[in-house]
Amino acid sequence: MTSKLNVAIIGAGRIGQVHAKTILNTLPEARIKYIADNNPAAQQWVESLGGPQFTLTPGDIFQDKEIDAVLICSSTDTHVEYIIEAANAGKHVFCEKPIDHDLSKIHSALEAVEQNEVKFQIGFNRRFDHNFSAVKQAIEAGQVGELRFINITSRDPGAPPVDYIKVSGGIFMDMTIHDFDMARYLACSEVTEVYAKGAMMVDPEIGKAGDYDSAAIMLTFANGCIAMINNCREASYGYDQRVEVFGSLGAMEIENDTPSKARLSTASGVNQEKPLHFFMDRYTQSYMSEIHEFIQAITQNRKLTTCAADGLKSVEIAKAALQSAKEGRPIPMK
Amino acid sequence: MTSKLNVAIIGAGRIGQVHAKTILNTLPEARIKYIADNNPAAQQWVESLGGPQFTLTPGDIFQDKEIDAVLICSSTDTHVEYIIEAANAGKHVFCEKPIDHDLSKIHSALEAVEQNEVKFQIGFNRRFDHNFSAVKQAIEAGQVGELRFINITSRDPGAPPVDYIKVSGGIFMDMTIHDFDMARYLACSEVTEVYAKGAMMVDPEIGKAGDYDSAAIMLTFANGCIAMINNCREASYGYDQRVEVFGSLGAMEIENDTPSKARLSTASGVNQEKPLHFFMDRYTQSYMSEIHEFIQAITQNRKLTTCAADGLKSVEIAKAALQSAKEGRPIPMK
Amino acid sequence: MTSKLNVAIIGAGRIGQVHAKTILNTLPEARIKYIADNNPAAQQWVESLGGPQFTLTPGDIFQDKEIDAVLICSSTDTHVEYIIEAANAGKHVFCEKPIDHDLSKIHSALEAVEQNEVKFQIGFNRRFDHNFSAVKQAIEAGQVGELRFINITSRDPGAPPVDYIKVSGGIFMDMTIHDFDMARYLACSEVTEVYAKGAMMVDPEIGKAGDYDSAAIMLTFANGCIAMINNCREASYGYDQRVEVFGSLGAMEIENDTPSKARLSTASGVNQEKPLHFFMDRYTQSYMSEIHEFIQAITQNRKLTTCAADGLKSVEIAKAALQSAKEGRPIPMK
Amino acid sequence: MTSKLNVAIIGAGRIGQVHAKTILNTLPEARIKYIADNNPAAQQWVESLGGPQFTLTPGDIFQDKEIDAVLICSSTDTHVEYIIEAANAGKHVFCEKPIDHDLSKIHSALEAVEQNEVKFQIGFNRRFDHNFSAVKQAIEAGQVGELRFINITSRDPGAPPVDYIKVSGGIFMDMTIHDFDMARYLACSEVTEVYAKGAMMVDPEIGKAGDYDSAAIMLTFANGCIAMINNCREASYGYDQRVEVFGSLGAMEIENDTPSKARLSTASGVNQEKPLHFFMDRYTQSYMSEIHEFIQAITQNRKLTTCAADGLKSVEIAKAALQSAKEGRPIPMK
Repeated sequence: MTSKLNVAIIGAGRIGQVHAKTILNTLPEARIKYIADNNPAAQQWVESLGGPQFTLTPGDIFQDKEIDAVLICSSTDTHVEYIIEAANAGKHVFCEKPIDHDLSKIHSALEAVEQNEVKFQIGFNRRFDHNFSAVKQAIEAGQVGELRFINITSRDPGAPPVDYIKVSGGIFMDMTIHDFDMARYLACSEVTEVYAKGAMMVDPEIGKAGDYDSAAIMLTFANGCIAMINNCREASYGYDQRVEVFGSLGAMEIENDTPSKARLSTASGVNQEKPLHFFMDRYTQSYMSEIHEFIQAITQNRKLTTCAADGLKSVEIAKAALQSAKEGRPIPMK
Repeated sequence: MTSKLNVAIIGAGRIGQVHAKTILNTLPEARIKYIADNNPAAQQWVESLGGPQFTLTPGDIFQDKEIDAVLICSSTDTHVEYIIEAANAGKHVFCEKPIDHDLSKIHSALEAVEQNEVKFQIGFNRRFDHNFSAVKQAIEAGQVGELRFINITSRDPGAPPVDYIKVSGGIFMDMTIHDFDMARYLACSEVTEVYAKGAMMVDPEIGKAGDYDSAAIMLTFANGCIAMINNCREASYGYDQRVEVFGSLGAMEIENDTPSKARLSTASGVNQEKPLHFFMDRYTQSYMSEIHEFIQAITQNRKLTTCAADGLKSVEIAKAALQSAKEGRPIPMK
Repeated sequence: MTSKLNVAIIGAGRIGQVHAKTILNTLPEARIKYIADNNPAAQQWVESLGGPQFTLTPGDIFQDKEIDAVLICSSTDTHVEYIIEAANAGKHVFCEKPIDHDLSKIHSALEAVEQNEVKFQIGFNRRFDHNFSAVKQAIEAGQVGELRFINITSRDPGAPPVDYIKVSGGIFMDMTIHDFDMARYLACSEVTEVYAKGAMMVDPEIGKAGDYDSAAIMLTFANGCIAMINNCREASYGYDQRVEVFGSLGAMEIENDTPSKARLSTASGVNQEKPLHFFMDRYTQSYMSEIHEFIQAITQNRKLTTCAADGLKSVEIAKAALQSAKEGRPIPMK
Repeated sequence: MTSKLNVAIIGAGRIGQVHAKTILNTLPEARIKYIADNNPAAQQWVESLGGPQFTLTPGDIFQDKEIDAVLICSSTDTHVEYIIEAANAGKHVFCEKPIDHDLSKIHSALEAVEQNEVKFQIGFNRRFDHNFSAVKQAIEAGQVGELRFINITSRDPGAPPVDYIKVSGGIFMDMTIHDFDMARYLACSEVTEVYAKGAMMVDPEIGKAGDYDSAAIMLTFANGCIAMINNCREASYGYDQRVEVFGSLGAMEIENDTPSKARLSTASGVNQEKPLHFFMDRYTQSYMSEIHEFIQAITQNRKLTTCAADGLKSVEIAKAALQSAKEGRPIPMK
């Protein structure tokens, strides 16, 4: 018998590994009992951790009464099935974004979560980033006043392979979805209209694959706030993740994180370092913090920052954005 | 007989006075022969300058063969008449923005300019601002590459009186018109579509007067670039005038000018000064530079940074923006 | 008969011309009656101004009862003589720094000022610079608390010709003197000890001419505050003029002014503009402001920011610094 | 039998715990076999780690042939004894700073290190900080050119208890020693002269305890570079750790790290967050990096960034600084 929280991780890919290390190294109140992956090659890595047990069959996890919580880090098409099984087995669920690309499947997953009264967190890690958090705190502290505009810049350092694009769900579902969630999170309101333009600015191959590589979106919120988002799959200077919020009392903006805070002045100018290039570096702390919140929300029975509906809403907006871009008109949302 | 350029100014209001001082103090190659104003009270100020002659009747100016150039700084409704008279008299014309709110009147003014082959400059002073100029230069130098996005923030420190609002032509014609011109200037391309939302975020009295006090606009350009503009008649921290351009090779952004570059660190935080509050302070240098360019383009027979069409295009976009905001749909432009 | 303040300028070199334009263009309450210069070639420039009268003999100025104030912008070796003549003729005096390199001559000049009860301002223009002023104001407003450290960085963009070095009075008298004055101004206290090191870091020819091209100085003040100054005749990135003050309640630091506030992010880094390169550009506003204060202190009978002793003290510190550098020991000051 | 590097830690205080976690969580190539502490209460924490063995007697460590390396994190007065024992037992040594306050004892420790040809690293963690590292790299890459000045600001958020002051060795040995090491590290040269002033600016009790609470130091290096350091035991706005280096080709400066990169503009100004307050937060990454270097220098047989002499030199400078402050004169160093 142990007083530690028993956790299982499904999916031993990049993000599953990150979450595993967070729990092993920084959350003594939790214990990883299983790590599941459908690739037998993952077994070696799991065993090197010296504690968690490897399994090819997630069913083992759902049947194990000792398991308190499950982190679903497998491919998107498996999310709904695992959420439902975990919820029905009474286990709390952390699931990477997006829940699914299909709204009815998402609804069935959220229903299972609700009926079984388990906690559910969707992996919108940026909510936990120190910079975005500072903006949210300023809004909640009333320092910004009534929100008027939210301007989000979200640009990747380079486009992913076209093969990835093909299964990604498209730029709105794969990339902007983080920004839709951030806009909703900061606005504290629901979107009533989406106007979106998709564009080919980087690589024509992405267009041939049926997707856009850049996008500009205007969201109108029920509280009157307007958000403008610009996305691009490529930025020469690296990963660009910024927001400005403007309200009746003030404006708050964030800059990108950089490897150092050094500034070099020479005959050719004054130079600083580029933003952190890789999203895993830029968001290291946020990935840790979201798992800390998940584990501690269970052990201390606290409310989570994200709710089940957050995973649904962002997908609804992504679908409306795609429709808007295709039809060339603003799409109202109920 | 004098070798100086003979200039007349019509309108001795705030901006007319600024231009008069620029010529008197910093342009020895020009001489202000007349300053006209329909308010006799302006005579005292004109005489205190110790050179220019006061007149109530601009006709004096157009008839004086010695006059080379006219600066039209009177109210908007008089612009077209004076442009046509000046052009027909063979005088070069500098005119404050907007030329007019009526497209057909603008066309007739521009026709007179063209037929008489006089130089014509429209007072889009921000093109001459050191910060916006730096952005334009970077674009022209190829440092930004092919433009993808232009993000313009343009917020006033406080709303003007409702009486001003009523005769202003509306937010798109009065305020955003500067941003429409800047977007065109930076994009080096023409707008093909306007999507605009007008909003009431500051003062309901402005809405009762039939205007918006805030606006969000998305412009699509023929070259594929997309501009997003946000406007508000009030910003708690002062006059906010910024732009970011993003292209295939890089991004350039500007910060606001401040009274000093001092930073105070205390127990309550790290504090800097707010942006320069008053547009006449923020844009002092640009008002001087635009008049320098106008005078020197004449004396040295150089091409101007703005052309006659710039005054027309910005009004066309403003009209499309208003239509978009009212009809809730994107408006294509030919 | 005129109600304007009658001013004369002695010396039509670079700084005399700057002050002349300030008065002509921005101080309608003053009139420049004479501009004197021992070079007849200056006459043409003076006449082009269209008001002031040229003279080769400053004696004309001192004898003219109409003259209220004299600006002494001639070479350093003439300052004391002109100060004494002007003061004895009851005229207020503005004098460029330094008053002289000889302490007894300075004393005699200040004596004449005191006996004749005329106003006296020494041209320490940096006290009027917007950035240094912000620091002074924060100190006076109590935001910094009791001062502990003052760190001054003062570097020129490039070394002057060796011929200039030879007559400059040496780095401490020519360059650091501004920093000595600034340290005293900010510390609001007198120096009790000077420890200085002179060094050859830029050009050995400067050493052969008997001077240093770089210097590091530690000043101890009566109130316990310690100032550290670093000087160099050459900085690859331009004119570097900064200060940080640190006290019991906080710290304030200033950055250099730049041509624009643009920032370019590309694959090779994030780049900003270098500081304003030329001291006349960097300090344009301060040169205007010091003359505004001088003229308005007379017309409105106000106290000046600098007092006669300021010109003396900075020379005393410069002499102690040179002695310290030569003898390799701290020099106490009474 | 294991292929992991076997490590022992002596001292389970704050810094010993930090190093233990670094090894456990981030260095799979190493294994902590022992953690020693003379306080039996430490046993509980050691056992909670689930691997290392607790011991009260460091002798166990030196006798265990399996141990490859020892981290000495105990009180300063024990350092030399443990270094000698470890070195004589052929174990590599990482030792917290300072080695000792007594130069002859330091010499005997370094002799043991040299004779036994073990690796020795002194815990000058700031060399591994991302900001200071960026400066060092710029210097080594030749971007700064020949060094002229080094300006170091090093201020604590608040003074330690007077009881700590009494055993600290004094401000130069306890606080400035980091800055002496940094100056040497950046200058790549040895100090030839020290001029130091100690001052009481914070708390008179520190003076009664025989120490200073603030200090200003000027160091001259053999290569002609001059360093100026200012230290204070208290800064209202937090932990202030900055450096600027200036050379023939440019200058590089670093800013403090902050909790976020958010900036709030309101009617009362533009506000950013204060620097990270606690040195363990500010230098988290550097503590990890120094241990990574130590372990990997052993496993990969690489040269260390710090050498044995670094621990000696910084103490020699600290002693000279104290002598200078007491005698009021510059102290030459051979």
